[in-house]
Amino acid sequence: MPNPWTTIGTRLIYQNPWLSLREDQVIRPDGKQGVYSVVEMLPSVGVVAIDANGDVALVEQWRYAHGKNSIEIPTGGSEKEDPDIQSAARRELAEETGISARQWRSLGSIDNSNGATTDVANMFLATDLTVGPPRQGGDESLRFFWLPFPQVVEMALDGRITESVTIAAVLKAELLRRMGQVVI
Amino acid sequence: MPNPWTTIGTRLIYQNPWLSLREDQVIRPDGKQGVYSVVEMLPSVGVVAIDANGDVALVEQWRYAHGKNSIEIPTGGSEKEDPDIQSAARRELAEETGISARQWRSLGSIDNSNGATTDVANMFLATDLTVGPPRQGGDESLRFFWLPFPQVVEMALDGRITESVTIAAVLKAELLRRMGQVVI
Repeated sequence: MPNPWTTIGTRLIYQNPWLSLREDQVIRPDGKQGVYSVVEMLPSVGVVAIDANGDVALVEQWRYAHGKNSIEIPTGGSEKEDPDIQSAARRELAEETGISARQWRSLGSIDNSNGATTDVANMFLATDLTVGPPRQGGDESLRFFWLPFPQVVEMALDGRITESVTIAAVLKAELLRRMGQVVI
Repeated sequence: MPNPWTTIGTRLIYQNPWLSLREDQVIRPDGKQGVYSVVEMLPSVGVVAIDANGDVALVEQWRYAHGKNSIEIPTGGSEKEDPDIQSAARRELAEETGISARQWRSLGSIDNSNGATTDVANMFLATDLTVGPPRQGGDESLRFFWLPFPQVVEMALDGRITESVTIAAVLKAELLRRMGQVVI
């Protein structure tokens, strides 16, 4: 299908280091004039890091926007300095957990809140791990721990895990494992 | 873990019918002052509607924020008038596809872009379907079609589907099916 929207103008509403908001003046698919506001973010990453025992690296952190703790795989935004998206994943994993991995496999990407944001999360399966000291930033307060992969799948199914990138990456990895396409 | 952030002020930056942006002044986990901006959205819904043949109702639409077409289950924001979230799911499903369903089962919820937005998507499995005429709004331009459930799972795994709610709901449904907890 061709793009049914026409953009006739745009203005920047807000910008901080993590996101910007722009409001476009548009002609909608029905031919009427309207506005479409877009929250722009750099691509993000999420990493399912699994050690030789089959345990997954998880972080629990307070999610300010939701006002609750959330158990997640290491996730984060890319930075302009990251040479590519897998480098961003390596950096985030090292920052949040101290882990470095020798084996990387893409689990594809997901579009979050795609009616309103440009957030694309790139997911990876990382294995063959070495654990060093984490380097958490001042705006992060994380608890890092390990759980067996089957238990993490259970938590993604029963609601103990609710973060979208974690759910997509863990369930993808589990189905690929059942189909014999990855070994965990 | 207790909330490690303190909010010391807030201001509304922007508001339209679909989202608002606020910027909070905060004391961060490391004790320094900073800002945290939050994109507020009402809860959203996504529905895996499966007919008696095992076919799934899908919609393809141009996603303005991403500048591309996206194949998705019917999804959408709730409205203040929706009496509850399942009613919102019924309304969205009827608007986008004309389908009404007699059997509804929750597939839980996911938090999208939870570092920046309040977007919580509530997912449902809908069966025992009746198909009537859709009632699409003027800001929507959708192609509605059916595909067999196993093919939709394949598309969620191989990257032809990238929308987060669709991936989470379809992969959850597939794993629950394999575990004998739902019949599809």
